[in-house]
Amino acid sequence: MEKVNYECRIIGVPKTIDNDLEGTDHCPGYGSAAKYIATSISEVYKDSIVYEAGAITIIEVMGRHAGWLVGASALAGLAGTPPDLIYFPEITFDFESFLNDVESVYKKKKNCLVAVSEGIRFADGNFVSDAKPAAYDGFGHEQLGGLAANLVALAKLRTGAKIRGIELSLLQRSAAHLASQTDIDEAFLAGKSAVELAIAGQSGKMIAFEREYINNSYHCKIITQPLTIAANQEKKVPRNWINEAGTYVTQEFIDYALPLIQGENTRATENGLPRFAQLKKIRAEVNDN
Amino acid sequence: MEKVNYECRIIGVPKTIDNDLEGTDHCPGYGSAAKYIATSISEVYKDSIVYEAGAITIIEVMGRHAGWLVGASALAGLAGTPPDLIYFPEITFDFESFLNDVESVYKKKKNCLVAVSEGIRFADGNFVSDAKPAAYDGFGHEQLGGLAANLVALAKLRTGAKIRGIELSLLQRSAAHLASQTDIDEAFLAGKSAVELAIAGQSGKMIAFEREYINNSYHCKIITQPLTIAANQEKKVPRNWINEAGTYVTQEFIDYALPLIQGENTRATENGLPRFAQLKKIRAEVNDN
Repeated sequence: MEKVNYECRIIGVPKTIDNDLEGTDHCPGYGSAAKYIATSISEVYKDSIVYEAGAITIIEVMGRHAGWLVGASALAGLAGTPPDLIYFPEITFDFESFLNDVESVYKKKKNCLVAVSEGIRFADGNFVSDAKPAAYDGFGHEQLGGLAANLVALAKLRTGAKIRGIELSLLQRSAAHLASQTDIDEAFLAGKSAVELAIAGQSGKMIAFEREYINNSYHCKIITQPLTIAANQEKKVPRNWINEAGTYVTQEFIDYALPLIQGENTRATENGLPRFAQLKKIRAEVNDN
Repeated sequence: MEKVNYECRIIGVPKTIDNDLEGTDHCPGYGSAAKYIATSISEVYKDSIVYEAGAITIIEVMGRHAGWLVGASALAGLAGTPPDLIYFPEITFDFESFLNDVESVYKKKKNCLVAVSEGIRFADGNFVSDAKPAAYDGFGHEQLGGLAANLVALAKLRTGAKIRGIELSLLQRSAAHLASQTDIDEAFLAGKSAVELAIAGQSGKMIAFEREYINNSYHCKIITQPLTIAANQEKKVPRNWINEAGTYVTQEFIDYALPLIQGENTRATENGLPRFAQLKKIRAEVNDN
Protein backbone atom coordinates (compact mmCIF):
# COMPACT_ATOMS: atom_id res chain seq x y z
CA MET A 1 0.00 0.00 0.00
CA GLU A 2 2.81 2.36 0.91
CA LYS A 3 4.48 1.50 -2.39
CA VAL A 4 1.62 2.75 -4.52
CA ASN A 5 1.04 5.68 -2.20
CA TYR A 6 -2.51 4.51 -1.47
CA GLU A 7 -3.64 5.64 1.90
CA CYS A 8 -5.07 2.49 3.43
CA ARG A 9 -4.44 1.27 6.94
CA ILE A 10 -4.67 -2.42 7.66
CA ILE A 11 -5.40 -3.77 11.14
CA GLY A 12 -6.04 -7.47 11.62
CA VAL A 13 -8.69 -8.66 14.04
CA PRO A 14 -8.34 -12.36 14.87
CA LYS A 15 -11.46 -14.48 14.94
CA THR A 16 -11.85 -18.22 14.72
CA ILE A 17 -13.68 -20.72 16.86
CA ASP A 18 -10.74 -23.04 16.07
CA ASN A 19 -8.58 -20.83 18.31
CA ASP A 20 -5.46 -21.82 16.40
CA LEU A 21 -3.89 -18.42 15.68
CA GLU A 22 -0.41 -17.57 16.94
CA GLY A 23 0.33 -14.31 18.69
CA THR A 24 -2.81 -14.11 20.80
CA ASP A 25 -3.81 -15.86 24.03
CA HIS A 26 -7.08 -16.89 22.39
CA CYS A 27 -9.38 -15.86 19.55
CA PRO A 28 -12.81 -14.22 19.57
CA GLY A 29 -15.37 -16.92 18.88
CA TYR A 30 -13.58 -19.68 20.74
CA GLY A 31 -15.18 -19.02 24.14
CA SER A 32 -18.70 -19.23 22.71
CA ALA A 33 -18.05 -22.41 20.73
CA ALA A 34 -16.34 -23.93 23.78
CA LYS A 35 -19.38 -23.07 25.90
CA TYR A 36 -21.70 -24.65 23.33
CA ILE A 37 -19.60 -27.82 23.17
CA ALA A 38 -19.30 -28.20 26.96
CA THR A 39 -23.01 -27.52 27.45
CA SER A 40 -24.02 -29.98 24.73
CA ILE A 41 -21.74 -32.69 26.16
CA SER A 42 -23.37 -32.08 29.56
CA GLU A 43 -26.86 -32.44 28.16
CA VAL A 44 -26.02 -35.50 26.03
CA TYR A 45 -24.40 -37.08 29.12
CA LYS A 46 -27.67 -36.63 31.02
CA ASP A 47 -29.59 -38.12 28.10
CA SER A 48 -27.25 -41.11 27.93
CA ILE A 49 -27.69 -42.21 31.54
CA VAL A 50 -31.49 -42.30 31.72
CA TYR A 51 -31.69 -45.70 30.03
CA GLU A 52 -31.09 -49.02 31.74
CA ALA A 53 -29.33 -50.32 28.66
CA GLY A 54 -25.95 -48.64 28.33
CA ALA A 55 -24.68 -46.93 25.24
CA ILE A 56 -21.53 -45.65 23.61
CA THR A 57 -21.91 -42.09 22.33
CA ILE A 58 -19.36 -40.63 19.94
CA ILE A 59 -19.50 -36.87 19.49
CA GLU A 60 -17.64 -35.27 16.62
CA VAL A 61 -16.28 -31.79 17.26
CA MET A 62 -14.76 -29.30 14.78
CA GLY A 63 -11.07 -28.36 14.63
CA ARG A 64 -9.20 -29.82 11.70
CA HIS A 65 -5.68 -28.96 12.89
CA ALA A 66 -5.85 -28.22 16.61
CA GLY A 67 -7.69 -29.70 19.57
CA TRP A 68 -8.87 -26.51 21.29
CA LEU A 69 -12.53 -27.24 20.55
CA VAL A 70 -12.52 -30.95 21.33
CA GLY A 71 -10.60 -30.25 24.55
CA ALA A 72 -13.40 -27.89 25.63
CA SER A 73 -15.61 -30.96 26.01
CA ALA A 74 -13.74 -31.60 29.28
CA LEU A 75 -15.23 -28.43 30.78
CA ALA A 76 -18.45 -30.44 31.09
CA GLY A 77 -16.67 -32.21 33.93
CA LEU A 78 -17.27 -29.12 36.08
CA ALA A 79 -21.00 -29.82 35.82
CA GLY A 80 -20.36 -33.41 36.91
CA THR A 81 -20.90 -34.66 33.36
CA PRO A 82 -17.48 -35.27 31.79
CA PRO A 83 -16.74 -37.16 28.59
CA ASP A 84 -14.81 -40.38 29.26
CA LEU A 85 -12.34 -40.04 26.42
CA ILE A 86 -11.15 -37.22 24.17
CA TYR A 87 -9.26 -37.68 20.90
CA PHE A 88 -7.09 -34.80 19.69
CA PRO A 89 -5.65 -33.99 16.26
CA GLU A 90 -2.35 -33.41 18.09
CA ILE A 91 -2.19 -37.12 19.00
CA THR A 92 -1.72 -39.83 16.37
CA PHE A 93 -4.90 -41.88 16.19
CA ASP A 94 -4.53 -45.60 16.59
CA PHE A 95 -7.66 -47.52 15.86
CA GLU A 96 -6.84 -50.50 18.09
CA SER A 97 -6.06 -48.26 21.08
CA PHE A 98 -9.32 -46.38 20.47
CA LEU A 99 -11.35 -49.60 20.49
CA ASN A 100 -9.53 -50.87 23.59
CA ASP A 101 -10.09 -47.57 25.43
CA VAL A 102 -13.79 -47.44 24.56
CA GLU A 103 -14.37 -51.12 25.34
CA SER A 104 -12.64 -50.82 28.69
CA VAL A 105 -14.72 -47.82 29.81
CA TYR A 106 -17.91 -49.42 28.52
CA LYS A 107 -17.26 -52.70 30.34
CA LYS A 108 -16.75 -50.85 33.61
CA LYS A 109 -19.57 -48.29 33.37
CA LYS A 110 -21.98 -49.68 30.74
CA ASN A 111 -21.75 -46.21 29.25
CA CYS A 112 -19.07 -44.38 27.36
CA LEU A 113 -19.09 -40.80 26.13
CA VAL A 114 -16.37 -39.98 23.62
CA ALA A 115 -15.43 -36.63 22.06
CA VAL A 116 -13.42 -36.85 18.84
CA SER A 117 -11.92 -34.05 16.81
CA GLU A 118 -12.75 -34.08 13.11
CA GLY A 119 -9.00 -33.68 12.56
CA ILE A 120 -7.73 -36.95 14.04
CA ARG A 121 -5.26 -38.75 11.78
CA PHE A 122 -3.59 -42.11 11.48
CA ALA A 123 0.18 -42.50 11.78
CA ASP A 124 0.42 -42.29 7.97
CA GLY A 125 -1.02 -38.76 8.13
CA ASN A 126 -4.39 -39.65 6.59
CA PHE A 127 -7.52 -38.25 8.21
CA VAL A 128 -9.65 -40.88 9.96
CA SER A 129 -12.67 -39.14 8.44
CA ASP A 130 -11.41 -40.09 4.99
CA ALA A 131 -10.92 -43.73 5.96
CA LYS A 132 -12.89 -46.36 4.16
CA PRO A 133 -14.23 -48.85 6.70
CA ALA A 134 -13.80 -51.44 3.95
CA ALA A 135 -10.12 -51.31 4.71
CA TYR A 136 -10.76 -52.21 8.33
CA ASP A 137 -13.93 -54.20 8.65
CA GLY A 138 -14.46 -56.01 5.38
CA PHE A 139 -17.86 -54.41 4.75
CA GLY A 140 -16.76 -54.09 1.15
CA HIS A 141 -18.13 -50.64 0.56
CA GLU A 142 -17.19 -47.02 0.98
CA GLN A 143 -18.37 -44.78 3.73
CA LEU A 144 -20.04 -41.41 3.15
CA GLY A 145 -21.28 -40.45 6.55
CA GLY A 146 -18.22 -38.72 7.94
CA LEU A 147 -16.05 -39.35 10.95
CA ALA A 148 -18.62 -40.03 13.67
CA ALA A 149 -20.52 -42.44 11.42
CA ASN A 150 -17.23 -44.15 10.53
CA LEU A 151 -16.23 -44.71 14.14
CA VAL A 152 -19.75 -45.77 15.10
CA ALA A 153 -19.83 -48.43 12.38
CA LEU A 154 -16.44 -49.74 13.42
CA ALA A 155 -16.95 -49.69 17.19
CA LYS A 156 -20.32 -51.42 16.80
CA LEU A 157 -18.65 -54.42 15.25
CA ARG A 158 -16.20 -54.74 18.12
CA THR A 159 -18.35 -54.10 21.18
CA GLY A 160 -21.86 -55.11 20.15
CA ALA A 161 -23.07 -52.14 22.24
CA LYS A 162 -25.72 -49.63 21.29
CA ILE A 163 -23.72 -46.84 19.69
CA ARG A 164 -24.79 -43.39 18.65
CA GLY A 165 -22.88 -40.84 16.65
CA ILE A 166 -23.52 -37.13 17.05
CA GLU A 167 -21.89 -34.55 14.82
CA LEU A 168 -22.04 -31.10 16.39
CA SER A 169 -21.68 -29.91 12.80
CA LEU A 170 -22.04 -26.23 12.10
CA LEU A 171 -24.44 -25.89 15.01
CA GLN A 172 -21.32 -25.38 17.15
CA ARG A 173 -20.29 -22.29 15.22
CA SER A 174 -23.73 -20.77 14.71
CA ALA A 175 -25.40 -21.28 18.11
CA ALA A 176 -25.39 -17.60 19.06
CA HIS A 177 -28.11 -18.28 21.63
CA LEU A 178 -25.47 -19.91 23.82
CA ALA A 179 -22.69 -17.37 23.32
CA SER A 180 -20.35 -16.61 26.21
CA GLN A 181 -20.76 -13.05 27.47
CA THR A 182 -17.00 -12.92 28.10
CA ASP A 183 -16.45 -13.79 24.44
CA ILE A 184 -18.97 -11.19 23.24
CA ASP A 185 -17.36 -8.46 25.37
CA GLU A 186 -13.86 -9.36 24.19
CA ALA A 187 -14.92 -9.55 20.53
CA PHE A 188 -16.44 -6.07 20.84
CA LEU A 189 -13.27 -4.79 22.49
CA ALA A 190 -11.08 -6.30 19.74
CA GLY A 191 -13.09 -4.57 17.00
CA LYS A 192 -13.15 -1.26 18.85
CA SER A 193 -9.40 -1.36 19.48
CA ALA A 194 -8.72 -2.09 15.80
CA VAL A 195 -10.72 0.96 14.70
CA GLU A 196 -8.96 3.16 17.27
CA LEU A 197 -5.58 1.92 16.07
CA ALA A 198 -6.42 2.70 12.45
CA ILE A 199 -7.69 6.16 13.36
CA ALA A 200 -4.43 6.75 15.21
CA GLY A 201 -2.62 6.16 11.92
CA GLN A 202 -1.26 2.66 12.53
CA SER A 203 -1.17 -0.11 9.93
CA GLY A 204 0.18 -3.66 9.45
CA LYS A 205 -0.79 -4.64 12.99
CA MET A 206 -2.97 -7.35 14.47
CA ILE A 207 -5.07 -6.92 17.58
CA ALA A 208 -4.33 -9.67 20.08
CA PHE A 209 -5.36 -10.75 23.56
CA GLU A 210 -3.06 -11.11 26.55
CA ARG A 211 -4.29 -12.80 29.68
CA GLU A 212 -3.74 -11.29 33.12
CA TYR A 213 -4.77 -12.48 36.55
CA ILE A 214 -5.53 -9.68 38.98
CA ASN A 215 -6.25 -11.01 42.48
CA ASN A 216 -6.63 -14.46 40.92
CA SER A 217 -9.30 -13.14 38.64
CA TYR A 218 -9.06 -13.44 34.84
CA HIS A 219 -8.67 -10.26 32.78
CA CYS A 220 -8.14 -9.80 29.07
CA LYS A 221 -5.77 -7.08 27.86
CA ILE A 222 -5.51 -5.83 24.28
CA ILE A 223 -2.02 -5.87 22.76
CA THR A 224 -0.82 -5.42 19.19
CA GLN A 225 1.28 -7.82 17.14
CA PRO A 226 2.83 -7.63 13.69
CA LEU A 227 0.22 -8.68 11.14
CA THR A 228 2.47 -11.47 9.88
CA ILE A 229 2.48 -13.36 13.20
CA ALA A 230 -0.70 -15.33 12.52
CA ALA A 231 0.11 -16.28 8.93
CA ASN A 232 1.01 -19.79 7.83
CA GLN A 233 1.10 -21.51 11.20
CA GLU A 234 -1.46 -23.10 13.48
CA LYS A 235 -1.24 -22.96 17.25
CA LYS A 236 -1.63 -26.46 18.63
CA VAL A 237 -2.68 -27.52 22.11
CA PRO A 238 0.61 -27.95 24.06
CA ARG A 239 1.46 -31.62 24.57
CA ASN A 240 1.56 -31.22 28.39
CA TRP A 241 -2.04 -29.88 28.36
CA ILE A 242 -3.06 -33.36 27.18
CA ASN A 243 -2.60 -36.34 29.51
CA GLU A 244 0.07 -38.96 28.95
CA ALA A 245 -2.31 -41.48 27.37
CA GLY A 246 -3.40 -38.76 24.93
CA THR A 247 -7.08 -39.23 25.79
CA TYR A 248 -7.95 -36.30 28.09
CA VAL A 249 -6.86 -32.79 29.01
CA THR A 250 -4.81 -31.83 32.05
CA GLN A 251 -5.70 -29.16 34.61
CA GLU A 252 -3.71 -26.59 32.58
CA PHE A 253 -6.22 -26.84 29.76
CA ILE A 254 -9.19 -26.43 32.12
CA ASP A 255 -7.58 -23.40 33.75
CA TYR A 256 -6.99 -21.88 30.32
CA ALA A 257 -10.45 -22.46 28.83
CA LEU A 258 -12.80 -22.07 31.81
CA PRO A 259 -12.66 -18.25 32.11
CA LEU A 260 -13.53 -17.93 28.42
CA ILE A 261 -16.98 -19.55 28.70
CA GLN A 262 -18.17 -17.44 31.63
CA GLY A 263 -21.19 -15.18 31.50
CA GLU A 264 -24.68 -15.83 30.22
CA ASN A 265 -25.63 -13.72 27.26
CA THR A 266 -28.96 -11.97 27.83
CA ARG A 267 -29.96 -12.43 24.25
CA ALA A 268 -32.69 -10.48 22.53
CA THR A 269 -35.70 -12.57 21.63
CA GLU A 270 -39.01 -11.94 19.91
CA ASN A 271 -41.81 -14.50 19.57
CA GLY A 272 -39.62 -16.91 21.55
CA LEU A 273 -37.03 -16.80 18.76
CA PRO A 274 -33.69 -15.03 18.31
CA ARG A 275 -33.99 -11.40 17.28
CA PHE A 276 -31.23 -10.55 14.85
CA ALA A 277 -29.75 -7.08 14.50
CA GLN A 278 -30.40 -5.58 11.09
CA LEU A 279 -28.45 -2.89 9.37
CA LYS A 280 -31.07 -0.66 7.80
CA LYS A 281 -30.44 1.01 4.50
CA ILE A 282 -30.80 4.74 4.94
CA ARG A 283 -32.03 6.03 1.63
CA ALA A 284 -30.37 9.23 0.60
CA GLU A 285 -33.02 11.83 0.01
CA VAL A 286 -32.41 13.32 -3.38
CA ASN A 287 -33.86 16.67 -4.09
CA ASP A 288 -34.97 16.75 -7.71
CA ASN A 289 -35.19 20.52 -7.97
CA MET B 1 -55.36 -53.73 40.04
CA GLU B 2 -58.95 -53.66 41.22
CA LYS B 3 -59.24 -57.35 40.44
CA VAL B 4 -56.49 -58.37 42.80
CA ASN B 5 -57.59 -55.82 45.37
CA TYR B 6 -54.23 -54.09 45.22
CA GLU B 7 -54.59 -50.45 46.11
CA CYS B 8 -52.68 -48.74 43.36
CA ARG B 9 -53.89 -45.70 41.48
CA ILE B 10 -52.67 -45.12 37.96
CA ILE B 11 -52.61 -41.66 36.39
CA GLY B 12 -50.94 -41.17 33.05
CA VAL B 13 -48.89 -38.07 32.32
CA PRO B 14 -48.23 -37.58 28.62
CA LYS B 15 -44.74 -36.55 27.54
CA THR B 16 -43.09 -36.80 24.19
CA ILE B 17 -41.26 -34.27 22.07
CA ASP B 18 -42.86 -36.11 19.11
CA ASN B 19 -46.21 -34.60 20.21
CA ASP B 20 -48.11 -37.49 18.61
CA LEU B 21 -50.43 -38.56 21.46
CA GLU B 22 -54.20 -38.50 20.99
CA GLY B 23 -56.48 -36.93 23.60
CA THR B 24 -54.36 -33.90 24.40
CA ASP B 25 -53.87 -30.61 22.57
CA HIS B 26 -50.10 -31.11 22.84
CA CYS B 27 -47.54 -32.97 24.93
CA PRO B 28 -45.04 -31.72 27.52
CA GLY B 29 -41.63 -31.63 25.85
CA TYR B 30 -42.88 -30.60 22.44
CA GLY B 31 -42.70 -26.85 23.01
CA SER B 32 -39.06 -27.02 24.11
CA ALA B 33 -37.98 -29.25 21.22
CA ALA B 34 -39.91 -27.01 18.80
CA LYS B 35 -38.12 -23.97 20.22
CA TYR B 36 -34.74 -25.68 19.81
CA ILE B 37 -35.52 -26.66 16.22
CA ALA B 38 -36.81 -23.21 15.20
CA THR B 39 -33.86 -21.48 16.89
CA SER B 40 -31.31 -23.82 15.28
CA ILE B 41 -32.87 -23.36 11.83
CA SER B 42 -32.66 -19.58 12.38
CA GLU B 43 -28.99 -19.76 13.30
CA VAL B 44 -28.09 -22.16 10.49
CA TYR B 45 -29.93 -19.87 8.06
CA LYS B 46 -27.72 -16.96 9.17
CA ASP B 47 -24.63 -19.15 8.79
CA SER B 48 -25.68 -20.22 5.29
CA ILE B 49 -26.01 -16.71 3.83
CA VAL B 50 -22.64 -15.29 4.87
CA TYR B 51 -20.81 -16.95 1.99
CA GLU B 52 -20.75 -15.68 -1.57
CA ALA B 53 -20.95 -19.22 -2.89
CA GLY B 54 -24.42 -20.59 -2.28
CA ALA B 55 -25.21 -23.86 -0.57
CA ILE B 56 -27.96 -26.37 -0.07
CA THR B 57 -28.43 -27.30 3.59
CA ILE B 58 -30.47 -30.33 4.54
CA ILE B 59 -31.47 -30.55 8.20
CA GLU B 60 -32.81 -33.82 9.58
CA VAL B 61 -35.38 -33.52 12.36
CA MET B 62 -36.82 -36.25 14.62
CA GLY B 63 -40.39 -37.57 14.40
CA ARG B 64 -40.68 -41.03 12.91
CA HIS B 65 -44.47 -41.04 12.49
CA ALA B 66 -45.69 -37.45 12.67
CA GLY B 67 -44.44 -34.11 11.40
CA TRP B 68 -44.96 -31.96 14.50
CA LEU B 69 -41.23 -31.46 15.01
CA VAL B 70 -40.23 -30.90 11.40
CA GLY B 71 -43.15 -28.47 11.01
CA ALA B 72 -41.78 -26.42 13.91
CA SER B 73 -38.87 -25.46 11.62
CA ALA B 74 -41.33 -23.04 9.95
CA LEU B 75 -41.50 -21.01 13.18
CA ALA B 76 -38.04 -19.72 12.20
CA GLY B 77 -39.92 -17.70 9.57
CA LEU B 78 -41.05 -15.35 12.35
CA ALA B 79 -37.40 -14.38 12.84
CA GLY B 80 -37.10 -13.73 9.11
CA THR B 81 -35.13 -16.94 8.63
CA PRO B 82 -37.51 -19.60 7.28
CA PRO B 83 -36.58 -22.95 5.74
CA ASP B 84 -37.44 -23.08 2.03
CA LEU B 85 -38.90 -26.57 2.02
CA ILE B 86 -40.23 -28.96 4.66
CA TYR B 87 -40.77 -32.69 4.13
CA PHE B 88 -43.30 -34.44 6.40
CA PRO B 89 -43.83 -38.11 7.23
CA GLU B 90 -47.52 -37.45 6.50
CA ILE B 91 -46.70 -36.81 2.82
CA THR B 92 -45.42 -39.55 0.51
CA PHE B 93 -41.84 -38.75 -0.43
CA ASP B 94 -41.03 -38.66 -4.10
CA PHE B 95 -37.38 -38.38 -4.86
CA GLU B 96 -37.79 -36.69 -8.25
CA SER B 97 -40.14 -34.04 -6.81
CA PHE B 98 -37.68 -33.44 -3.96
CA LEU B 99 -34.79 -32.88 -6.38
CA ASN B 100 -36.92 -30.62 -8.59
CA ASP B 101 -38.09 -28.57 -5.60
CA VAL B 102 -34.57 -28.14 -4.22
CA GLU B 103 -33.05 -27.38 -7.62
CA SER B 104 -35.70 -24.79 -8.39
CA VAL B 105 -35.18 -22.91 -5.09
CA TYR B 106 -31.40 -23.13 -5.46
CA LYS B 107 -31.45 -21.77 -9.02
CA LYS B 108 -33.51 -18.78 -7.91
CA LYS B 109 -31.76 -17.96 -4.59
CA LYS B 110 -28.36 -19.69 -4.79
CA ASN B 111 -29.27 -21.02 -1.38
CA CYS B 112 -31.72 -23.60 -0.19
CA LEU B 113 -32.53 -24.61 3.39
CA VAL B 114 -34.48 -27.85 3.70
CA ALA B 115 -35.96 -29.48 6.82
CA VAL B 116 -36.72 -33.20 6.48
CA SER B 117 -38.37 -35.49 8.97
CA GLU B 118 -36.52 -38.71 9.78
CA GLY B 119 -39.85 -40.44 9.08
CA ILE B 120 -40.31 -39.62 5.39
CA ARG B 121 -41.24 -42.65 3.31
CA PHE B 122 -41.51 -43.63 -0.32
CA ALA B 123 -44.84 -44.62 -1.89
CA ASP B 124 -44.00 -48.28 -1.19
CA GLY B 125 -43.93 -47.50 2.54
CA ASN B 126 -40.16 -47.85 2.96
CA PHE B 127 -38.33 -45.23 5.00
CA VAL B 128 -36.07 -43.00 2.90
CA SER B 129 -33.48 -43.34 5.68
CA ASP B 130 -33.26 -47.06 4.91
CA ALA B 131 -32.78 -46.47 1.19
CA LYS B 132 -29.60 -47.60 -0.42
CA PRO B 133 -28.39 -44.85 -2.75
CA ALA B 134 -27.07 -47.69 -4.90
CA ALA B 135 -30.63 -48.27 -5.97
CA TYR B 136 -30.89 -44.70 -7.20
CA ASP B 137 -27.50 -43.42 -8.16
CA GLY B 138 -25.45 -46.40 -9.22
CA PHE B 139 -22.73 -45.75 -6.62
CA GLY B 140 -22.69 -49.49 -6.08
CA HIS B 141 -22.38 -49.41 -2.32
CA GLU B 142 -24.52 -49.19 0.76
CA GLN B 143 -25.03 -46.09 2.82
CA LEU B 144 -24.50 -45.92 6.57
CA GLY B 145 -24.78 -42.24 7.34
CA GLY B 146 -28.51 -41.91 7.81
CA LEU B 147 -31.15 -39.84 6.10
CA ALA B 148 -29.46 -36.44 5.85
CA ALA B 149 -26.28 -38.02 4.48
CA ASN B 150 -28.37 -40.05 2.03
CA LEU B 151 -30.16 -37.02 0.65
CA VAL B 152 -26.96 -34.98 0.57
CA ALA B 153 -25.17 -37.62 -1.50
CA LEU B 154 -28.07 -37.85 -3.91
CA ALA B 155 -28.77 -34.12 -4.29
CA LYS B 156 -25.06 -33.42 -4.84
CA LEU B 157 -25.08 -35.57 -7.95
CA ARG B 158 -28.02 -33.69 -9.42
CA THR B 159 -27.24 -30.07 -8.61
CA GLY B 160 -23.47 -29.92 -8.35
CA ALA B 161 -24.01 -27.43 -5.52
CA LYS B 162 -22.19 -27.32 -2.20
CA ILE B 163 -24.43 -29.38 0.06
CA ARG B 164 -24.32 -29.86 3.81
CA GLY B 165 -26.29 -32.28 5.91
CA ILE B 166 -27.07 -31.53 9.56
CA GLU B 167 -28.71 -34.06 11.83
CA LEU B 168 -30.21 -32.37 14.89
CA SER B 169 -29.85 -35.83 16.44
CA LEU B 170 -30.54 -36.20 20.14
CA LEU B 171 -29.38 -32.64 20.74
CA GLN B 172 -32.99 -31.65 19.95
CA ARG B 173 -34.35 -33.68 22.84
CA SER B 174 -31.64 -32.94 25.39
CA ALA B 175 -31.01 -29.20 24.89
CA ALA B 176 -32.52 -28.14 28.22
CA HIS B 177 -30.64 -24.83 28.02
CA LEU B 178 -33.13 -23.74 25.34
CA ALA B 179 -36.30 -25.04 26.97
CA SER B 180 -39.52 -23.07 26.53
CA GLN B 181 -40.70 -21.59 29.82
CA THR B 182 -44.29 -22.24 28.72
CA ASP B 183 -43.39 -25.91 28.29
CA ILE B 184 -41.65 -26.08 31.67
CA ASP B 185 -44.65 -24.50 33.44
CA GLU B 186 -47.11 -26.81 31.71
CA ALA B 187 -45.00 -29.91 32.41
CA PHE B 188 -44.90 -28.97 36.09
CA LEU B 189 -48.66 -28.41 36.09
CA ALA B 190 -49.27 -31.79 34.43
CA GLY B 191 -47.25 -33.63 37.07
CA LYS B 192 -48.85 -31.71 39.93
CA SER B 193 -52.35 -32.39 38.59
CA ALA B 194 -51.61 -36.10 38.27
CA VAL B 195 -50.52 -36.33 41.90
CA GLU B 196 -53.59 -34.40 43.05
CA LEU B 197 -55.84 -36.69 41.04
CA ALA B 198 -54.27 -39.81 42.57
CA ILE B 199 -54.55 -38.37 46.09
CA ALA B 200 -58.23 -37.68 45.38
CA GLY B 201 -58.68 -41.39 44.76
CA GLN B 202 -58.90 -41.43 40.98
CA SER B 203 -57.26 -44.03 38.75
CA GLY B 204 -57.12 -45.10 35.08
CA LYS B 205 -57.00 -41.50 33.90
CA MET B 206 -54.59 -39.51 31.78
CA ILE B 207 -53.78 -35.86 32.34
CA ALA B 208 -54.29 -33.88 29.15
CA PHE B 209 -54.05 -30.30 27.92
CA GLU B 210 -56.88 -28.28 26.44
CA ARG B 211 -56.15 -25.00 24.75
CA GLU B 212 -58.18 -21.88 25.49
CA TYR B 213 -57.91 -18.36 24.16
CA ILE B 214 -58.91 -15.69 26.66
CA ASN B 215 -58.88 -12.21 25.09
CA ASN B 216 -56.89 -13.70 22.20
CA SER B 217 -54.26 -14.90 24.60
CA TYR B 218 -53.23 -18.57 24.82
CA HIS B 219 -54.03 -20.51 28.00
CA CYS B 220 -53.54 -24.16 28.83
CA LYS B 221 -56.21 -25.95 30.85
CA ILE B 222 -55.78 -29.36 32.48
CA ILE B 223 -58.43 -31.95 31.62
CA THR B 224 -58.56 -35.69 32.22
CA GLN B 225 -59.01 -38.42 29.64
CA PRO B 226 -59.43 -42.19 29.86
CA LEU B 227 -55.97 -43.76 30.06
CA THR B 228 -56.67 -45.82 26.94
CA ILE B 229 -57.04 -42.80 24.66
CA ALA B 230 -53.34 -42.45 23.87
CA ALA B 231 -52.66 -46.14 23.28
CA ASN B 232 -51.95 -47.62 19.87
CA GLN B 233 -52.49 -44.55 17.72
CA GLU B 234 -50.38 -41.63 16.63
CA LYS B 235 -51.75 -38.16 16.14
CA LYS B 236 -50.64 -36.87 12.75
CA VAL B 237 -50.40 -33.29 11.54
CA PRO B 238 -53.78 -32.58 9.86
CA ARG B 239 -53.48 -32.53 6.07
CA ASN B 240 -54.84 -28.97 5.85
CA TRP B 241 -52.06 -27.73 8.18
CA ILE B 242 -49.63 -28.66 5.39
CA ASN B 243 -49.75 -26.75 2.10
CA GLU B 244 -51.11 -28.28 -1.09
CA ALA B 245 -47.67 -29.08 -2.50
CA GLY B 246 -46.86 -30.90 0.75
CA THR B 247 -43.68 -28.87 1.29
CA TYR B 248 -44.56 -26.29 3.96
CA VAL B 249 -46.99 -25.65 6.81
CA THR B 250 -50.06 -23.43 6.62
CA GLN B 251 -50.90 -20.60 9.03
CA GLU B 252 -52.96 -23.06 11.14
CA PHE B 253 -49.77 -24.89 12.10
CA ILE B 254 -47.96 -21.67 13.02
CA ASP B 255 -50.91 -20.53 15.16
CA TYR B 256 -50.91 -23.90 16.92
CA ALA B 257 -47.19 -24.17 17.63
CA LEU B 258 -46.10 -20.57 18.27
CA PRO B 259 -47.61 -20.15 21.77
CA LEU B 260 -45.83 -23.32 22.91
CA ILE B 261 -42.28 -21.97 22.38
CA GLN B 262 -42.81 -18.72 24.28
CA GLY B 263 -40.84 -17.74 27.35
CA GLU B 264 -37.11 -17.80 27.98
CA ASN B 265 -36.09 -20.18 30.69
CA THR B 266 -33.87 -18.47 33.27
CA ARG B 267 -31.73 -21.52 33.67
CA ALA B 268 -29.46 -22.13 36.58
CA THR B 269 -25.78 -22.06 35.68
CA GLU B 270 -22.53 -22.54 37.54
CA ASN B 271 -19.07 -22.02 36.01
CA GLY B 272 -20.82 -20.99 32.80
CA LEU B 273 -22.31 -24.50 32.55
CA PRO B 274 -25.76 -25.96 33.27
CA ARG B 275 -26.41 -26.66 36.93
CA PHE B 276 -28.41 -29.85 37.25
CA ALA B 277 -30.79 -30.57 40.11
CA GLN B 278 -29.69 -33.53 42.19
CA LEU B 279 -31.82 -35.75 44.33
CA LYS B 280 -29.78 -36.39 47.45
CA LYS B 281 -29.94 -39.73 49.17
CA ILE B 282 -31.04 -39.31 52.73
CA ARG B 283 -29.47 -42.14 54.62
CA ALA B 284 -31.79 -43.68 57.18
CA GLU B 285 -30.10 -43.58 60.54
CA VAL B 286 -30.25 -47.06 61.99
CA ASN B 287 -29.89 -47.39 65.68
CA ASP B 288 -28.00 -50.58 66.41
CA ASN B 289 -29.00 -50.76 70.06
